[in-house]
Amino acid sequence: MKTLVIVSHPEINNSQTQQFLLQGAKLQDVTWHHVEELSEIDVEKEQALLKEHDRIIFQFPLYWYAAPEGLKHWEDNVLTRNFVYGDGDDNLAEKEFGIVVSTGMPLKDFQRGGSENVTIDEIMAPYFAIAQRAKMQILPVFTIAQFQYLQENTQMQLLIDYQRYLTQQYPDSLQNRQIWFEREFTDRFKNFDGTNCNECETILNTFIQQREDISQLKSTISLIKQGEDE
Amino acid sequence: MKTLVIVSHPEINNSQTQQFLLQGAKLQDVTWHHVEELSEIDVEKEQALLKEHDRIIFQFPLYWYAAPEGLKHWEDNVLTRNFVYGDGDDNLAEKEFGIVVSTGMPLKDFQRGGSENVTIDEIMAPYFAIAQRAKMQILPVFTIAQFQYLQENTQMQLLIDYQRYLTQQYPDSLQNRQIWFEREFTDRFKNFDGTNCNECETILNTFIQQREDISQLKSTISLIKQGEDE
Repeated sequence: MKTLVIVSHPEINNSQTQQFLLQGAKLQDVTWHHVEELSEIDVEKEQALLKEHDRIIFQFPLYWYAAPEGLKHWEDNVLTRNFVYGDGDDNLAEKEFGIVVSTGMPLKDFQRGGSENVTIDEIMAPYFAIAQRAKMQILPVFTIAQFQYLQENTQMQLLIDYQRYLTQQYPDSLQNRQIWFEREFTDRFKNFDGTNCNECETILNTFIQQREDISQLKSTISLIKQGEDE
Repeated sequence: MKTLVIVSHPEINNSQTQQFLLQGAKLQDVTWHHVEELSEIDVEKEQALLKEHDRIIFQFPLYWYAAPEGLKHWEDNVLTRNFVYGDGDDNLAEKEFGIVVSTGMPLKDFQRGGSENVTIDEIMAPYFAIAQRAKMQILPVFTIAQFQYLQENTQMQLLIDYQRYLTQQYPDSLQNRQIWFEREFTDRFKNFDGTNCNECETILNTFIQQREDISQLKSTISLIKQGEDE
């Protein structure tokens, strides 16, 4: 599976969040595509890029409840009617569509009664509508709130969740998570030189935790079954 | 009351709908402000313009379920945090906020089960969120669907509804409508040279219809009251 991350940020070099995510996106089969860096949009090239990938991600900071103008510029030019749904060419159909959105406001503000009084899902409606029109499979939004206030270990956890968002098979089931972690373990430990590695440790801990969760669940189920049999 | 119509359309001269609306917007106290015509955005000037008006309208065709990139460019530059809600300067508070959106799809597509499967109100969520954040009074969206297929008299009715949307007092009550029509009658008939005038006739017909509605309502109420008294 190949993933295209279409990133929009007018000052990406000054964005701590985007620089952090850029490190995380350095994975096999992931293409990082920063739209503001394109001097001009070559529509055919962009459309070819979309076709080559199986999972399309829009990634941006929330500017007035939407992506920065750069992404709209890209959308208005690249997503021609014919390419997306005209003339029976459903070029994006069956592909997966995800959103990685960062905000400086706390997540709790984005709910009815919160200071924004609207949910992240609600303000993402235009993007979902595009995905739906293109017959894509919509993934749940990946929201990063107040990145700069997160503690280092939470940031590391976020990085792994982000990597899973980019490359793990959908849906985010326990089984798919296990397959992902096992694959990543194998790949990463190959390149692990024995020095201290925070990321490796976090992966390992998460994995062990999940293994324990599973074994606990299994024994619970087995107890329930025993109870039913008696 | 002064109304600012912030219009976004990349090819406005080729847009039949926008040219039609432009004719309608030629009213006292209405400022037509086409953002794509600004060679560069003078933030202070734009903010001053906003401050001077009481009703702010975003007007645009629906491009991928949002305004064209030109409006986002304007938003991202003009709506600085400090101007909208920072430092206690609620520069837009108490102003009214409206949206005039045109679409080439029929209105019935924009509902659950329709081919868009999403409502116009839902995809306008980012704009409502801005208005809410700015403590503005939100007006119902004015939607124009498939303008080019409308018959001439329907287009004329639309023009009057549009003019009311720009300048009639909110809410759209019978009383406010009557006040608006009376004012417009007086103003327009002053300049009426006696030749045939479709617009005048439509206004007149609408007005007479409403007068009749009112008198009918009044006699119904009076009958109900008589019934209660007996």
